[in-house]
Amino acid sequence: MVDKLLKERIRSEKLLDRIVGAEDAAELIKDGMVIGASGFTPSGYPKAVPLALAEKAKKSDKPFKISLYTGASVGAEVDGAWAEAGIISKRLPYQTNAKIREKINSGEIEYVDMHLSQSTQYVNYGFIPKVDVAIVEALAITEDGHLIPTSGIGNTAAFVAQADRVIVEINKKKPLELEGMADIYTTKAPPNREPIPITHPGDRIGVPYIECGADKIAAIVVTDLQDSTRPLAAVSEKEKQISNHIIDFLNKEVAAGRLTKELLPLQSGVGSVANAVFYGLCESDFSNLTCYTEVVQDSMLDLLRSGKAVIASTTSLSPSPEALEKFEQEIEFFKEKIILRPQELSNNPEVIRRLGVIAINTAIEMDIYGNVNSTHIMGSKMMNGIGGSGDFTRNGYITIFSTVSTAKDGAISSIVPFVSHVDHTEHEVMVIVTEQGYADLRGLSPKERAIKIIENCAHPDYRTALMDYYTRASEVSAKQTPHILDEALSWHAKFQKTGSMK
Amino acid sequence: MVDKLLKERIRSEKLLDRIVGAEDAAELIKDGMVIGASGFTPSGYPKAVPLALAEKAKKSDKPFKISLYTGASVGAEVDGAWAEAGIISKRLPYQTNAKIREKINSGEIEYVDMHLSQSTQYVNYGFIPKVDVAIVEALAITEDGHLIPTSGIGNTAAFVAQADRVIVEINKKKPLELEGMADIYTTKAPPNREPIPITHPGDRIGVPYIECGADKIAAIVVTDLQDSTRPLAAVSEKEKQISNHIIDFLNKEVAAGRLTKELLPLQSGVGSVANAVFYGLCESDFSNLTCYTEVVQDSMLDLLRSGKAVIASTTSLSPSPEALEKFEQEIEFFKEKIILRPQELSNNPEVIRRLGVIAINTAIEMDIYGNVNSTHIMGSKMMNGIGGSGDFTRNGYITIFSTVSTAKDGAISSIVPFVSHVDHTEHEVMVIVTEQGYADLRGLSPKERAIKIIENCAHPDYRTALMDYYTRASEVSAKQTPHILDEALSWHAKFQKTGSMK
Repeated sequence: MVDKLLKERIRSEKLLDRIVGAEDAAELIKDGMVIGASGFTPSGYPKAVPLALAEKAKKSDKPFKISLYTGASVGAEVDGAWAEAGIISKRLPYQTNAKIREKINSGEIEYVDMHLSQSTQYVNYGFIPKVDVAIVEALAITEDGHLIPTSGIGNTAAFVAQADRVIVEINKKKPLELEGMADIYTTKAPPNREPIPITHPGDRIGVPYIECGADKIAAIVVTDLQDSTRPLAAVSEKEKQISNHIIDFLNKEVAAGRLTKELLPLQSGVGSVANAVFYGLCESDFSNLTCYTEVVQDSMLDLLRSGKAVIASTTSLSPSPEALEKFEQEIEFFKEKIILRPQELSNNPEVIRRLGVIAINTAIEMDIYGNVNSTHIMGSKMMNGIGGSGDFTRNGYITIFSTVSTAKDGAISSIVPFVSHVDHTEHEVMVIVTEQGYADLRGLSPKERAIKIIENCAHPDYRTALMDYYTRASEVSAKQTPHILDEALSWHAKFQKTGSMK
Repeated sequence: MVDKLLKERIRSEKLLDRIVGAEDAAELIKDGMVIGASGFTPSGYPKAVPLALAEKAKKSDKPFKISLYTGASVGAEVDGAWAEAGIISKRLPYQTNAKIREKINSGEIEYVDMHLSQSTQYVNYGFIPKVDVAIVEALAITEDGHLIPTSGIGNTAAFVAQADRVIVEINKKKPLELEGMADIYTTKAPPNREPIPITHPGDRIGVPYIECGADKIAAIVVTDLQDSTRPLAAVSEKEKQISNHIIDFLNKEVAAGRLTKELLPLQSGVGSVANAVFYGLCESDFSNLTCYTEVVQDSMLDLLRSGKAVIASTTSLSPSPEALEKFEQEIEFFKEKIILRPQELSNNPEVIRRLGVIAINTAIEMDIYGNVNSTHIMGSKMMNGIGGSGDFTRNGYITIFSTVSTAKDGAISSIVPFVSHVDHTEHEVMVIVTEQGYADLRGLSPKERAIKIIENCAHPDYRTALMDYYTRASEVSAKQTPHILDEALSWHAKFQKTGSMK
């Protein structure tokens, strides 16, 4: 048993005596520490040690608070359990868990919502308190004590490089065949940074392991736990319509000679719109597609399976539980078609701009001038975070934002006079899509955009009111971006008071 | 006379017969055309032909409208004269002229306010109507019909490449010694773009001329007109204090080991705060400084003269008239120390992030959560535009925004509950500075930022009211980013009604 483990998963004999139980490993984490966790989305994150720490904290009456840095979201075993145990003081750069979200919005947790590619730099440049302990899920440890990552890379390399001590969770549930899918390349800090030598999504430029070294490894916990990946949400009729509009737009770009049938590398946020778009692409006339993105979901696996797409670069594999099971039986097929990179690379502005990524992301709301809110409900309540949407949107070849035109059974218009929070500005949002249609905003002034967004994207129930606001604003304010400031946010305020924007 | 001109400025004999008067050249510009003009800031822009066109249009009663694309702002000979003549229908990507601003805000001109580095891509990718005629100020035309630019590069290379016809203004006022200062490198469109091989601000990677070819040159106008550069504004006491706070901050970063005495390449917006900062640097302990910026002003020339800075990469030289005169006597000295690049490179995200630029820009207003408005007065009225501030801010190593804490004799607070327009979001603004002090926002949650900005940066006259808003908002809304939405923009609305935010 130990022999097999040694041979396959822990390839340095001297590390065998560092194998401990999760509870013992959790003892290494002290009050006030900064913890860096591996993974990105519910994929590749540590599970056993975080759960043990949460249990310990719940039983203790001593004050215990830590800061948690991750790649992006992690599973409930970290964000959920730790939030419930009340041990997180600061959290960055992203989350999607209901329990931690509740504590963020109640003010108990200080949450720093960051561009994901910049989170790596904040660590490397020493802009935020340093990582004390990194907890890393790994497939295996090499003879030299380096870590073979599992299915989500995120900021792991940066955390391991900075941490004083590293706790490794060797997850036997993760097939060893994944080894080699990761391509780890790290950047030097300025002024010594070199050009990142990626000119095609399929370029491999690094090594298949995260540098660590045996000395840093303070504890090894052997686990057998599957990622709590998200179930696949059904694609609604409206989301299907959004997908159709996006594919229609892309077809028109091909017809206009601004794209070829191979398009350019695709990026997409997670969720059912993304799945709808990629399922739509499976049935399209496009061919030899490539993806340069941060998350691979079910539909992207299907796109690769169908041969429509030839390569996907990502920092995380996050399919539904069913799709994950299927994927794990086809790893050899996917190994040549998927590259797992650190998020500093998957989301890197330099590479995204060079490759000319087509960025497709979802919005909570958009305003008539093309500003997009991706993060806050009614301006104050954090939903998830900006994630990588800013990395891709500011640097993409074409940047698309979609949302269903209404929410809460029509009580909320997703197109408003003035968004209650801005994550993507009028300067970088190119195309807005709802189930009603799309508005291509490129080269339009704010006034021209307003007409197009209202006519093409707003729900018919709100078009008249939006046009009325725009018309009246044009009469009373300067006309670059007409607004009536004491009415601009009144739609939201009305919803808060009456439960409807109508 | 023709011999000397031929030898020095028009180095192809067959082009001599294309020399015409400005009025004749202006005849090439027809109603409905898109015109691309050389230059960036009031530097390197065409003058004689635009003035002739404006005169012609004023005398004519035929409808005549054109779209004007430039690098950034241009002199009054273009924006001022054309706005006055009423011939601009669409304008992009930036302006600073009072006459055109008036017509933008009256709704007569459709103005597209763009990230300057992206404006090149919009042209190259065919996202906006194509340039019909480029008007280019040049030092000289080479034997092969290529154009040696003068003192402002901007988007000239992209316009020339796309235009059907090129009108060249050979400006004898510009010293021939400038030849060689420009380094022209253009990028291919994805998927064929290569890494940009700049790893130091001083790297030269291109050629000293803009590719054109004799065939495209439809007319040559010989002029002798100086750029209408902006006079140097005096540095106020408050701006001096802002500069001191910025230098204090940089010193602390050096002390913390996050920067060396050589800092990292500096970028700065134009204006008196920028001048104050660079004058401050002249007297600082920093050494071997470098600049990677879009505009070189008086103070940056002094920084190079003093030896404190060793190199400046820019797309434009835009000193005051006095400093320009002095500069022109010292071109040999500066030729090894200044590189003029196309704005796609001076403002390139890839290069800015790789070099680790320290970006220092000014704001119109900021809110308590760190969002910055750089463009709109009271949410609707366009001031100048976002310019390059977004290119540098999103990708810089450290990003700083400054403003005097009040405007209009204290009637306006530059720190508000909610900015009336967002150009730079909470996700990328790192340091906020007013004459009151600075707030280092790195790694802070919105709540933590609010306290710091109010305490360190807001004017004492407004601190209590800001804290009162923040406190009351915290009681009624979700606590990630506390807001009272029907009060969030009330400070602006109050100013519009009463003339004061107090």
